[in-house]
Amino acid sequence: RINSDRLWDSLMEMAKIGPGVAGGNNRQTLTDEDGEGRALFQKWCEEAGCTMGLDQMGNMFARREGTDPEALPVYVGSHLDTQPTGGKYDGVLGVLGGLEIIRTLNDLNIKTKHPIVVTNWTNEEGTRFAPAMLASGVFAGMHTQDWAYDREDAEGKKFGDELQRIGWRGEEEVGARKMHAFFELHIEQGPILEAEGKDIGVVTHGQGLSWTQVTITGKDAHTGSTPMPMRRNAGLGMARVLEKVDEIAWSHAPHAVGAAGHIDVYPNSRNVIPGKVVFTVDFRSPELSVIEDMENRLRVEGQKIADAMGLEIEFEKVGGFDPVKFDEGCVEAVRRAAERLGYSHRDIISGAGHDACWINRVAPTAMVMCPCVDGLSHNEAEEISKDWAAAGADVLFHAVVETAEI
Amino acid sequence: RINSDRLWDSLMEMAKIGPGVAGGNNRQTLTDEDGEGRALFQKWCEEAGCTMGLDQMGNMFARREGTDPEALPVYVGSHLDTQPTGGKYDGVLGVLGGLEIIRTLNDLNIKTKHPIVVTNWTNEEGTRFAPAMLASGVFAGMHTQDWAYDREDAEGKKFGDELQRIGWRGEEEVGARKMHAFFELHIEQGPILEAEGKDIGVVTHGQGLSWTQVTITGKDAHTGSTPMPMRRNAGLGMARVLEKVDEIAWSHAPHAVGAAGHIDVYPNSRNVIPGKVVFTVDFRSPELSVIEDMENRLRVEGQKIADAMGLEIEFEKVGGFDPVKFDEGCVEAVRRAAERLGYSHRDIISGAGHDACWINRVAPTAMVMCPCVDGLSHNEAEEISKDWAAAGADVLFHAVVETAEI
Ligand SMILES: NC(=O)NCCC(=O)O
Ligand SMILES: NC(=O)NCCC(=O)O
Repeated sequence: RINSDRLWDSLMEMAKIGPGVAGGNNRQTLTDEDGEGRALFQKWCEEAGCTMGLDQMGNMFARREGTDPEALPVYVGSHLDTQPTGGKYDGVLGVLGGLEIIRTLNDLNIKTKHPIVVTNWTNEEGTRFAPAMLASGVFAGMHTQDWAYDREDAEGKKFGDELQRIGWRGEEEVGARKMHAFFELHIEQGPILEAEGKDIGVVTHGQGLSWTQVTITGKDAHTGSTPMPMRRNAGLGMARVLEKVDEIAWSHAPHAVGAAGHIDVYPNSRNVIPGKVVFTVDFRSPELSVIEDMENRLRVEGQKIADAMGLEIEFEKVGGFDPVKFDEGCVEAVRRAAERLGYSHRDIISGAGHDACWINRVAPTAMVMCPCVDGLSHNEAEEISKDWAAAGADVLFHAVVETAEI
Repeated sequence: RINSDRLWDSLMEMAKIGPGVAGGNNRQTLTDEDGEGRALFQKWCEEAGCTMGLDQMGNMFARREGTDPEALPVYVGSHLDTQPTGGKYDGVLGVLGGLEIIRTLNDLNIKTKHPIVVTNWTNEEGTRFAPAMLASGVFAGMHTQDWAYDREDAEGKKFGDELQRIGWRGEEEVGARKMHAFFELHIEQGPILEAEGKDIGVVTHGQGLSWTQVTITGKDAHTGSTPMPMRRNAGLGMARVLEKVDEIAWSHAPHAVGAAGHIDVYPNSRNVIPGKVVFTVDFRSPELSVIEDMENRLRVEGQKIADAMGLEIEFEKVGGFDPVKFDEGCVEAVRRAAERLGYSHRDIISGAGHDACWINRVAPTAMVMCPCVDGLSHNEAEEISKDWAAAGADVLFHAVVETAEI
């Protein structure tokens, strides 16, 4: 078993970097705080005897050697970046849970045949730079690196420049590494495990996602002196599209969700009818056909709304991945580990996207989930118990070590 | 008649300060650009032989002496601040039209009995600091100066500090000046004069306004892993309230308008269900009872929407003024001037708020309007013709000089 106190202490130590305003974290990708978090992780890895690799996307790879020089490493990890009002565990548990495996192997003086590499993937959250899971996506060959470098944040700063600025752009070619397997531990971010009193979710699938950025253009005009019939109110158009998004998602319930988290209104002045609104619609489902249906209906219904109001509307797909089926062998290793350790468990579909969803395309991959309080995530109040963290890390430990062979 | 080339040149010269991105201006109140615009206006006034007064709200008063030391001055003016994506004429025409009166009187070597004072009122637009017409409101005793100093912009900067920072906080007590009359020239910002081919609007009334800031609170949560029934989506609540605002305004058409120009979504991340949305609803009507009805219905219907969705909603009145009836004598002076000069004219109700609306409470006041292209304002593409500007300034000149007595 792993050392649950040490794991918890590390989680709390990392949470001191980029504190939020309500007990959580704001350690968004490629900020100075992200740099600080990376430095702390590197220090811990080096103290645990690992060597650190860094690729051109800023992905970090802390390696503990194996006994067989020919054997491909088993990778384990997640991400250290957070939402602007994020929690202390989303991503971090998976990285520090990986580190805890190394520390435990060191304590027990166990050598594995395959090397073990603990990974911190850059920009998993996708808040500052869309899409989410950007760097694992480049690693898996889903995006080109040039395209990734050109992603811009709300202030127009580019991913590539910001990576350089914080000093975490490495030399290593992205995706050159070959993996024996990849495992990711993550909090569920949904309510199922807690509600059913299960310690562990054995993640068999991940839902797919579609992000459509919608731009509605009307005409800036005076809110007082512009008669109602002359208005081209992009904000009102957005309101009608948001209603439609909700309706579309419910029409596929319980197999789909939909909402817009990002909304920017221009010029955003109390007495100017909005001339432009940009917002991103997030649709998800475990079924590809449902995602495609929702995406299409958004475009058709959105166009109708805009036409009826004399507005222009544009749709741009800014992120997405198809539903994922994880590797049966790796999933079985997770299930066996939970059984062996006596933790209650159930199979589960991940509602969120994870780096594992991309890595699954280039290596046998599985995920371990632990519950979180009220299913709440992407909120500073995100919470888990020390026991849940320990159970998740224990199962990760056993699955990884079994796969890496003693 | 005034010198229309000189007036136009001055408008174009002022428009160079704080240029927008699409041919208009971004010279928001108490920015460095506002400071530059003020300095240019002061220079021009001094060149025209005026002395400049400056009060504790940053209101500027350029005075041309009269022949009777006992006579109260006739005031004329408007504002030099603009919207973030504003036009070159909204406010500026009224200030520089006032300056043109002085210049023309100098050219013609005419002395008036009453002094004439050209005024630039601070923060008319209310974009950066709500409410609009803040400094004329303090002048008219509608707000206390302390309250005005505490108004905050979106970054939390205070009005009083920013006024100090740009160096335009004067010593003079606000509202101490007594006026013989006040005249304001302004572009219509609506479509009526152009549509009817009239040169001049004789403004008899101004519509009233109500700004209600609405805060809807739900719960930040993950857009992917939070099941639809567990969501408390503040953004969706806002969408429903925006629909209602539109419906309420239309229910009083054509005697009311309503929209929300300002919308801020938190934490504004693509994969976080909005936990909080703050937006400002702008309702206007020439009838007080209609404004009151709209305000009340917003609160009642908004509360219903929030309750049905498990959201919290708060309403705060952040600006407002009652419908205005301008002084009959001053209005008659404007009408007579238009007649005398042979300009086509009609009586009109101002759809927008103006400093004149507040000053009307402490001095006999009237307004002159000229057309603007397509009724468009609060847009960088705001446009007027040189002839329209000249007609407006001519009528202003005659009304002011008649009132100031030669
Ligand atoms: N796990 C997680 O929150 N990832 C962010 C990408 C997503 O929105 O699902
Ligand atoms: N004239 C003008 O646009 N004033 C700003 C205040 C308002 O919103 O009416």
